[in-house]
Amino acid sequence: MRLALLSGGVGGARFARALLHVVRPADLTAIVNVGDDLEVLGLHVSPDLDTVLYTLACLSDEERGWGRAGETWNALESVVELGGEAWFRLGDRDIGLHLVRAEALGRGEPLSSVTASLARALRLETTLLPATDEPLRTWVLTPAGSFPFQEWFVARGHRDEVDGVRFEGSAAAAPAPGVLEALGKADLILIAPSNPYVSIAPILAVEAIRAALEDRRVPAVAVSPLIGGKAVKGPAARMLDRLAGGTRAAHVASVYQGLIDALVIDEADAAEADALDELGVRPIVAGSTLMSDAAASRRLARTVLEATTLLAR
Amino acid sequence: MRLALLSGGVGGARFARALLHVVRPADLTAIVNVGDDLEVLGLHVSPDLDTVLYTLACLSDEERGWGRAGETWNALESVVELGGEAWFRLGDRDIGLHLVRAEALGRGEPLSSVTASLARALRLETTLLPATDEPLRTWVLTPAGSFPFQEWFVARGHRDEVDGVRFEGSAAAAPAPGVLEALGKADLILIAPSNPYVSIAPILAVEAIRAALEDRRVPAVAVSPLIGGKAVKGPAARMLDRLAGGTRAAHVASVYQGLIDALVIDEADAAEADALDELGVRPIVAGSTLMSDAAASRRLARTVLEATTLLAR
Repeated sequence: MRLALLSGGVGGARFARALLHVVRPADLTAIVNVGDDLEVLGLHVSPDLDTVLYTLACLSDEERGWGRAGETWNALESVVELGGEAWFRLGDRDIGLHLVRAEALGRGEPLSSVTASLARALRLETTLLPATDEPLRTWVLTPAGSFPFQEWFVARGHRDEVDGVRFEGSAAAAPAPGVLEALGKADLILIAPSNPYVSIAPILAVEAIRAALEDRRVPAVAVSPLIGGKAVKGPAARMLDRLAGGTRAAHVASVYQGLIDALVIDEADAAEADALDELGVRPIVAGSTLMSDAAASRRLARTVLEATTLLAR
Repeated sequence: MRLALLSGGVGGARFARALLHVVRPADLTAIVNVGDDLEVLGLHVSPDLDTVLYTLACLSDEERGWGRAGETWNALESVVELGGEAWFRLGDRDIGLHLVRAEALGRGEPLSSVTASLARALRLETTLLPATDEPLRTWVLTPAGSFPFQEWFVARGHRDEVDGVRFEGSAAAAPAPGVLEALGKADLILIAPSNPYVSIAPILAVEAIRAALEDRRVPAVAVSPLIGGKAVKGPAARMLDRLAGGTRAAHVASVYQGLIDALVIDEADAAEADALDELGVRPIVAGSTLMSDAAASRRLARTVLEATTLLAR
């Protein structure tokens, strides 16, 4: 069974890892958001790709939720000492990756190819693909003005309410090599429990990717990022409330209208199953969607796969 | 008393620090070799400038002889893990500096201006200047071929004999802003006990700097890098033997012909004083030129300054 997964950072990375309990690594392709990418200290940083990479390679810091385990911060300390830009936290081990990537990008290598090399070096069999090799940048529109994603998220601590998002460069962005192929060959398309607006929407902003989902011949299933109407982490619930009018399962489904056949929801949200049915989206109630440990992750992955084999298309 | 010092890496850096025992920091300008500079992992590295900076800021690793004290190597470890270029050792704290510099150079800031910012951030009162802001690169000609300096020195462990050196870009290189002014205002011009061929010659390869020394109106004094005909460290003696025909004080002086009025030699080489006199170079015999500790460094600096006040020009 071949899976294509649309993924953001930590939630997507953990879901990708969960899926490896139920499919072979080589049968999973993760198509990852690059709207959060940024240049910092002259280095190209791809936070979501890196989180997926580190998580699948068992190198991620599980407690912090981003970056590498056993990390040190000496380079950044010296940047601070020298008056350089230090608002975006880069650990020493992480910087090693950014240096290798920046050097390759500087030679003209596309992001997808660099990502493949990095994944190969860490012996991943899962395919990691940026949604696009071209610059696609998420801007967040707030009452205080319009900000590049990381400036809003990190520098301003995502305190500003969000009136909308905009994906600079999306009109011209083609899917990275392999993306449409992976979607075309998949037996099942999955959308990770990532933030629909700033993790998944930037992937869907690439027109050919959205069209591939609209024209799909296999089931597409999203996992809701909400549990009991709340986000596990981050601003997803606040954004859904403001932009979709609420934080129920139906509000999540409305963001993916026409793109999914089913939505996996936590048992805490089981009462909302009927509302999903009315939207034409099949509810899949999982015991728990919180990937708190390996067992819980495996259970979620198994539930998703078992339920979706029943979906006709 | 204002001093202008031509300097390479570790020997020059220690001599610069020694001079601060006898002059005020603000009265010293170090004009530093950039022929060893290189791009590694997309970062511009200026090994000699950095060694002088770290040494004067009391951040250098005295035992290793290069880089920063208390250094960690996690970024490079991750570069290795990811299959990146790792032949040139960069520590994490050091990388912080390279990131700040590369980012500023990328914005179009000249090396001299970035260097001044870094020195200011570390509260140095001594002026550090690259010999030139323009690309000037030392190539080492050997029986095995012609190599960029660091490839010969680090990657090949300077095992190849040297038939000559070449300074790519020197014809077009103008002195960095402040260099000619420092030489013009100095009461004394000093050449550090650095390798004459690969540390000092690249500075003198900038024509206007060489001309300023030739036309000097104040004394110029070099400190021999040899003690008892041997280099304290590195390939200086081997190079002098092959390129100047020997490792005596007179061979050192011959490399600086027309550019110095006196040569400071170690008491171990006192017997060679007469040969210097014959070359028209005044010998200054110091007790010891080995800067083994603060006291020895202070004595050397004091000897140099006292002896040179007797030099008329």
